[in-house]
Amino acid sequence: MPKTLRIGMIGYKFMGKAHSNAWRQVNRFFPDLPAQVELDTICGRNEKAVEAARKSLGWKRAETDWRAVVDDPSINVIDINTPNDTHAEIAIAAAKSGKAILCEKPLARGVGEASKMVAAVKTAKVVNMVCHNYRRIPAVALAKRMIEDGELGDRIYHYRARYAQEWLANPEFPLVWRLQKKIAGSGTHGDIDAHIIDLGRYLVGELKEVCGMMETFTKTRPLWEEGTAPPSAQKNGKKGKVTVDDAVSWVGRFKNGAVANLEATRFAWGRKNNITFEINGEKGSLFFDFEDMNRLKYFRAEDAQHRRGFTDIIVTDRVEHEYVGNWWPPGHIIGYEHTFVHTIADFVRAVAKGKSVHPTFEDGLKNERVLDAVEESAKTRQWVKV
Amino acid sequence: MPKTLRIGMIGYKFMGKAHSNAWRQVNRFFPDLPAQVELDTICGRNEKAVEAARKSLGWKRAETDWRAVVDDPSINVIDINTPNDTHAEIAIAAAKSGKAILCEKPLARGVGEASKMVAAVKTAKVVNMVCHNYRRIPAVALAKRMIEDGELGDRIYHYRARYAQEWLANPEFPLVWRLQKKIAGSGTHGDIDAHIIDLGRYLVGELKEVCGMMETFTKTRPLWEEGTAPPSAQKNGKKGKVTVDDAVSWVGRFKNGAVANLEATRFAWGRKNNITFEINGEKGSLFFDFEDMNRLKYFRAEDAQHRRGFTDIIVTDRVEHEYVGNWWPPGHIIGYEHTFVHTIADFVRAVAKGKSVHPTFEDGLKNERVLDAVEESAKTRQWVKV
Amino acid sequence: MPKTLRIGMIGYKFMGKAHSNAWRQVNRFFPDLPAQVELDTICGRNEKAVEAARKSLGWKRAETDWRAVVDDPSINVIDINTPNDTHAEIAIAAAKSGKAILCEKPLARGVGEASKMVAAVKTAKVVNMVCHNYRRIPAVALAKRMIEDGELGDRIYHYRARYAQEWLANPEFPLVWRLQKKIAGSGTHGDIDAHIIDLGRYLVGELKEVCGMMETFTKTRPLWEEGTAPPSAQKNGKKGKVTVDDAVSWVGRFKNGAVANLEATRFAWGRKNNITFEINGEKGSLFFDFEDMNRLKYFRAEDAQHRRGFTDIIVTDRVEHEYVGNWWPPGHIIGYEHTFVHTIADFVRAVAKGKSVHPTFEDGLKNERVLDAVEESAKTRQWVKV
Amino acid sequence: MPKTLRIGMIGYKFMGKAHSNAWRQVNRFFPDLPAQVELDTICGRNEKAVEAARKSLGWKRAETDWRAVVDDPSINVIDINTPNDTHAEIAIAAAKSGKAILCEKPLARGVGEASKMVAAVKTAKVVNMVCHNYRRIPAVALAKRMIEDGELGDRIYHYRARYAQEWLANPEFPLVWRLQKKIAGSGTHGDIDAHIIDLGRYLVGELKEVCGMMETFTKTRPLWEEGTAPPSAQKNGKKGKVTVDDAVSWVGRFKNGAVANLEATRFAWGRKNNITFEINGEKGSLFFDFEDMNRLKYFRAEDAQHRRGFTDIIVTDRVEHEYVGNWWPPGHIIGYEHTFVHTIADFVRAVAKGKSVHPTFEDGLKNERVLDAVEESAKTRQWVKV
Repeated sequence: MPKTLRIGMIGYKFMGKAHSNAWRQVNRFFPDLPAQVELDTICGRNEKAVEAARKSLGWKRAETDWRAVVDDPSINVIDINTPNDTHAEIAIAAAKSGKAILCEKPLARGVGEASKMVAAVKTAKVVNMVCHNYRRIPAVALAKRMIEDGELGDRIYHYRARYAQEWLANPEFPLVWRLQKKIAGSGTHGDIDAHIIDLGRYLVGELKEVCGMMETFTKTRPLWEEGTAPPSAQKNGKKGKVTVDDAVSWVGRFKNGAVANLEATRFAWGRKNNITFEINGEKGSLFFDFEDMNRLKYFRAEDAQHRRGFTDIIVTDRVEHEYVGNWWPPGHIIGYEHTFVHTIADFVRAVAKGKSVHPTFEDGLKNERVLDAVEESAKTRQWVKV
Repeated sequence: MPKTLRIGMIGYKFMGKAHSNAWRQVNRFFPDLPAQVELDTICGRNEKAVEAARKSLGWKRAETDWRAVVDDPSINVIDINTPNDTHAEIAIAAAKSGKAILCEKPLARGVGEASKMVAAVKTAKVVNMVCHNYRRIPAVALAKRMIEDGELGDRIYHYRARYAQEWLANPEFPLVWRLQKKIAGSGTHGDIDAHIIDLGRYLVGELKEVCGMMETFTKTRPLWEEGTAPPSAQKNGKKGKVTVDDAVSWVGRFKNGAVANLEATRFAWGRKNNITFEINGEKGSLFFDFEDMNRLKYFRAEDAQHRRGFTDIIVTDRVEHEYVGNWWPPGHIIGYEHTFVHTIADFVRAVAKGKSVHPTFEDGLKNERVLDAVEESAKTRQWVKV
Repeated sequence: MPKTLRIGMIGYKFMGKAHSNAWRQVNRFFPDLPAQVELDTICGRNEKAVEAARKSLGWKRAETDWRAVVDDPSINVIDINTPNDTHAEIAIAAAKSGKAILCEKPLARGVGEASKMVAAVKTAKVVNMVCHNYRRIPAVALAKRMIEDGELGDRIYHYRARYAQEWLANPEFPLVWRLQKKIAGSGTHGDIDAHIIDLGRYLVGELKEVCGMMETFTKTRPLWEEGTAPPSAQKNGKKGKVTVDDAVSWVGRFKNGAVANLEATRFAWGRKNNITFEINGEKGSLFFDFEDMNRLKYFRAEDAQHRRGFTDIIVTDRVEHEYVGNWWPPGHIIGYEHTFVHTIADFVRAVAKGKSVHPTFEDGLKNERVLDAVEESAKTRQWVKV
Repeated sequence: MPKTLRIGMIGYKFMGKAHSNAWRQVNRFFPDLPAQVELDTICGRNEKAVEAARKSLGWKRAETDWRAVVDDPSINVIDINTPNDTHAEIAIAAAKSGKAILCEKPLARGVGEASKMVAAVKTAKVVNMVCHNYRRIPAVALAKRMIEDGELGDRIYHYRARYAQEWLANPEFPLVWRLQKKIAGSGTHGDIDAHIIDLGRYLVGELKEVCGMMETFTKTRPLWEEGTAPPSAQKNGKKGKVTVDDAVSWVGRFKNGAVANLEATRFAWGRKNNITFEINGEKGSLFFDFEDMNRLKYFRAEDAQHRRGFTDIIVTDRVEHEYVGNWWPPGHIIGYEHTFVHTIADFVRAVAKGKSVHPTFEDGLKNERVLDAVEESAKTRQWVKV
C-alpha cells in the first residue's frame, strides 16, 4: 500500500469541480487518514479546456486521452466524472489496469452496462465505489446509525421521499442537452430519482416491486444556443422536442414489508434542491430535508408522552456525529461540498485497506435495477418485480 | 323561506359534538346570516345516551327513531352524523320528505349507494351538502381563490398530498371497530384518504386515472374490550384479524394533466392529524399543513428573484381572508372546530337561497368514484380509469 | 354553594365577546365542572348597543347601570370588561357586595388603584381573579408543569420575551383612542408588555429590579374620525399628538437570579400577535410562540447527545396535556378563544370551592408594580427596584 | 501592485485553521480576483506546534518570531489570529512595515489600543480590515443590499439581536482560560456580543447611547487541567473563580432613532451558535438565524395583503445573491467556513486596489466604543453615551 495515492480524474465540469475540491481538502480536514492523496492528472477531450481546469482545480498534469491515464502505472486511483455513456468503458479498463475506482452516479446507463462493470471489478479485485455523496451527509449517517441501533424499532412501515427542483417549471426554458434522450439517457428519473432510490436502499433495504408513472409536462421547448447560459439563450423562434421525463412518481414495496412512495420533479417552483424523506417505524419516525441538511428530525415514541414531538437535531456535534467533527465547532454548519470530502475520506480508507466501502459498484447495479423496473412499469402500466 | 331553520341531527358522537357546536356558534359569529338556526331535535338509538347528549350538546328534544325526525314537518334540515352504513337510507328518506340535508363524509359506502342518494336529492330538488369541513379552513379557501385568480398560472403540474396519523403504529393497539371491515366498511382509505381526494378535486380538478396499493401492516391485534378506552383495554391474550387497510399509497393523473401522488396512513409516529399538500403550477407553488392550519405557504415565481421564496401567510386577516374575520383580530388563531362553523354558515346561506353549495352530494359521488377506482387498482394491480 | 352561578358582565366590546363565548362554552366542554353558569346580565352605558350585544352574545338581561348589577342579590359573579379607568371602582363595589370577581387585565391603572382593589377583596373575602388568559394556553400550562417538575433544573438563567404586533408600523395609521394617554392610560407597555410580565412572573418568579426605555416612534398621526374603521378613516389633513409609548424595551433581574429581557412593540411588520418567550435553565430550555400556540419547544440536556435538539411538542394530548383534552382528538388544534374558556373553567371551580385561583388580584397588583417600575426607569434613566 | 500576494499569518489555532482554509480556497472559487495569494509563512511561539500546523494547514514556511515575519520584505499581507492581547503590538508593527493587515476580531482590548491601531494604519496608509466574517454571509449581504435599496423603508424602528450558545449551561464545565479575565480580557461580551454589535452597526447604523447589565451565573467552576479537553478534564475537587461575564443584556438607541435590544449568553441549552436578529422598518421586516445561515426571512408590507407574510429566501442564487454564486448551484448550501473565503476575497481585491474595504480598523474602533460603553453602563447602572 502506498503512503501516497496518486489520483487520475477523468472529466472536469460540475462534478470535476466538486471532486477536485474534495481531493484537495480531504487530508487537511481528515488528518488521520492512512494515505495522502496527490492530485496528479486531470483528463478531458478538449486540450485547452482541460489545461484551464488543471490550473484552476489544482492538478499537476493535464491529459486528453483517458486511456493514457488508466494505463499510467504511477496512478493509483481513477475518479470518473464523465457523462454517463462513458462510465462503463472507462471503469472496465481501469479495473483491468488494477486501479481503485471511484465513479460518479449513476453507475451506468442501465442494468446491462452496470453488470459488466461489477463483473470487471470483481474479476480484477479492485476497490470500487459509486459516488452517492448524499449518504455521507452527517444527518443521513446519523439516520443510518439510529435505524441500525433500533431507534425506529424492528419494523419500518414507510419510506416516503421526494427530490424536487424548479428549473423546468418555466416553459420558456430552452432544450438543453439534459432534455435530449440521445445525450442524457434519461431525465429526472436517472438524474435525481436515482439519489432517493439509493438513500432508500441504504436506509430501509432492498425493493421487491414497483409501480409508477413518468410524465413529460412540456413536450417542446425553444432550441438552445449551445455554450450559452439558459434560460435566456434560445435560438430565435424554433422549438424542439423534449425526449426525456420531466417527472416520475411511483409506489413500491420493500422486501421487509415497508411501503415506498417516491417522486422526482423539476417542476416545483420554490424547491431548489429539495430532497426530503420521512421514515416511519415501529418506535419512531425520521424526517430529513436537504435544504436544511445539517438537521435531522426524530420522533421517539418511547419518550414521556407529555413532552414527545419531533426533535430538531442539529447534527454538528464533534464526538457524537460522524464526519462533521472534523470541521468546526457545534452549530457552525457545513454545506454541499463537504459530502464529497466525507465520501472521499472513506474511499481513501478503503483503498488503503484494500477493501471496498459502500456504496460499491454492486450497489450501483442494484440502483440500476430499481431505475429500470420503474421505467418498465411506467411503460407497461403494470407492477414490475425488481 | 323560514327566518328560523329547525335542525334535526341524527347521530351524536364525535361528529355530533362538532356539528352541535357549529350549530350553536354559527349565528353568534356570522351575524349576517339570512336565517337563525334552532337546535331542535337530536336523535340516536340509545335513549339514555341520546338524552345525555341532548343536555350536554344543547338540543331541545331527543328522539330515538330517525324516521320520526325525518317526517316531522316542523324540521327544516336533517344533519346526518351516523355510521356510514346508514347514510343512504336516512338521506333518501329525508330527500323524499323535502328536507335540506347536510351529510357527514364519506357520503356513502361506494358508488352504488352514492348514486342513489344523488338521484334522490335531484328528484326532490332539496338543498344538499357533504360535510367536507377542510374545504373551509381559511387557508384552503385562500388556496382556492389564488388558484382561481391565476396566481399559480394556467397549468398545474403536481398535486401531492398526505394524510398521516400515528395511532396504529403501536402493534399492541387493540382491534377497535374501525379496524373491522364489516363495521367500518374500509380503513384509512375511506376515512382519511377521502379527505385529501376531496381537496384535490376541489383545488385541482377531476381525476382521470389512478394506480396504487393498499397495505395492512399489522395483520392481527389484541381483541378489544368494547366500551373501554384504547390502547390499554385489551382482552387478555387473544388476538383477532384486522380486515381493513392500514395505509394506502397511489399515483394518478388529473384530466388537466397534473400528476397526483397521495398517501394516507395511521402508522406515522409523530403525525397527529397531519394533512399536508403541495401544489406546483406554472407560476408558483402552494403548501399547506393542517397542524399549522392558520398558515398557507406560497412561492410566487414572478417576485423579484433576489427576494423570492416561500411566503408564510398567516391567514387571519379580517378583510382579505374568508371566514376568519368573523372571529378575532389578526394573529389570534382559530382551530379545528371553526371549520364546521364555516361549513354550516355556507350551508345556512344555501338553504335560505334554496341553492346547494359545494361540496354537494354530486361531489360526494365523484369522491366515491375515485375511492372505488383506487381500491380496484390495488386489487387488480392495474391502472383504473375513474 | 349554588349549583348555578349567575353572571353579571360589565362591558361588551372585544373582551365582552371573548368572555361571553367562554361563559357559553364552558359547561359544554368542561362537563365535570361543579356548577352551571348562567349568562344573566350584560351591562353597558349605551342602552341600544348593550341590547344589541345582549342578543348577539346570548345574555338574558341587559342593564345600563353597573351598580344595579353589582347590587343585584341574584347575581353571583361580576365579570369586568370595561376600560381600565373603571376597573377599581366596579371591583371594589362588587367586593363589598360579596360577589366573586373576574377582572380583565390590566387590573388597574397603577399600583395605587390595584392596592385598593386587593384590600377590598381581602376584606370581603371574595373569590377574585385577573383574566390573564395566556396562562391557560395548554402549551404555557405545560411549560409551568415542566418547570415545577424540575425539567429545566434547579436554576433558571434567562427569561426572554417579546410581544410584537404590526398595526402601528404604518405612519399613516390614525390617532385612535389607544394612542391618547388621557383615555388609554398607557400604550404598548400597559396593554401588551403586561402580558409577558405576567407570564414571566408565572413561569420564572418575582422580579427584583428593572431598567429600560420607552419610545414613541411616530410622534404625530392623522386625526381619527371616531366610529369609523382605521386605517382609512382619517380627518382630512390634520394631525394630532401621540401621547403614549409605541414600544418598550427593558432588562431586569428576577429574585432567583435569572436575567430578564423583555420587549413590546406595535412596529414590527409581519408580527400579528407574536408573543414569544424562551426560558433557559440548568437542564434545558423552553421556547413558545403564540402564533403557533398549540406547540411548545423543549430542549432536554439529559437526552442522549446524538439525538438532542429542540423537541416540537404538539400540545394536544387528551390525557397528558391540561385543558386541551376537553376539546378534540390529538392534532386537532384549538385557538385564541379557548384560552378564555380554560380560564373561566378554573374560575368556576374556584368560585364553587370558595378559594381563589391564580392569577389573583394580588398577582394583578404585583404586575402593576413591575409595570410602574419599568415606566419609572424609562423616565429616570436608572435601575428601579420592584 | 504584485500579481502575487505573499501572506504571513500570525497565530494558528481555531482562527488559523479557518483563515488558512480561506487563503487556500479563495483563488479556486473566486477566479476573477486581481491577485493570486501564496500561503507563505505561518507563525507561532511553539516551534513544534507551528511546524505541525504549517504542514497540516498548507504553508510554505514556519516561523516562531512574529517580528521576523512583519519585517520580511517578501511578505505583502499580515493576517493576525493571535490572542487579543497581542493584536495591537503586531498590527502597529505591521503598519510601520507597510503591510496590508487583516486582523481577527475583536480589534483590540478596548478603545485605547484600538485608537492607536487606527492611527498607525492611517499614518502608514496601509490597507486594513477587521475579520468580522459574519458580514459576508450571503444572507447578511442580501439584508444590507435590501436595506440600502429601501426595501425596509426610510426608517428603521427596531434592531433586536441575540447571540446564544450553550456550552457553559452545565455548572460542572471547568474553568478554561476563556473564563479568566487576565487571559481572556472579557467573556461573552467581548467574544460574541461583539459580533452582533458589528452587525447592528453594519445594517442599521451608529449607536447613540446604551444601558445594560452583565451577569456571571456560575461564580466558581472546577479547575481545569490545561491541555486536556473540557468538559471532562477537571482537577480533582478544587474550584476557582470565574472572572468574566457569562451573559450580557442591554438596550440602546441608534443615532437614526432605532431601538436596540441585544443579548449574548453561553447559558442557553439547545442554542449551538445561534445568532438571530430581526430588523423592523417602515416598509417591512427582516429576520436572520445563523443556524439557518443560507436563508433570510423578509416581510414586505407592500405585497398584496391576502398573500403577505414572511418570505423564506434561500440565498443561493447564482446571479442575484452576492458571493454564493461562486460555489454551487441554487439550493446547494454553503457553511461557516465560506464566510471567511468571502471576507478574504474582498480583502484581496482591496489590497490589489490599495483601498481598504469594510470593516476597517476604524469600524473595529467603533465597535470597541460600543463594547466599552455597555461595560461601563453595567458597572455604573446608568445610561452611557457611545
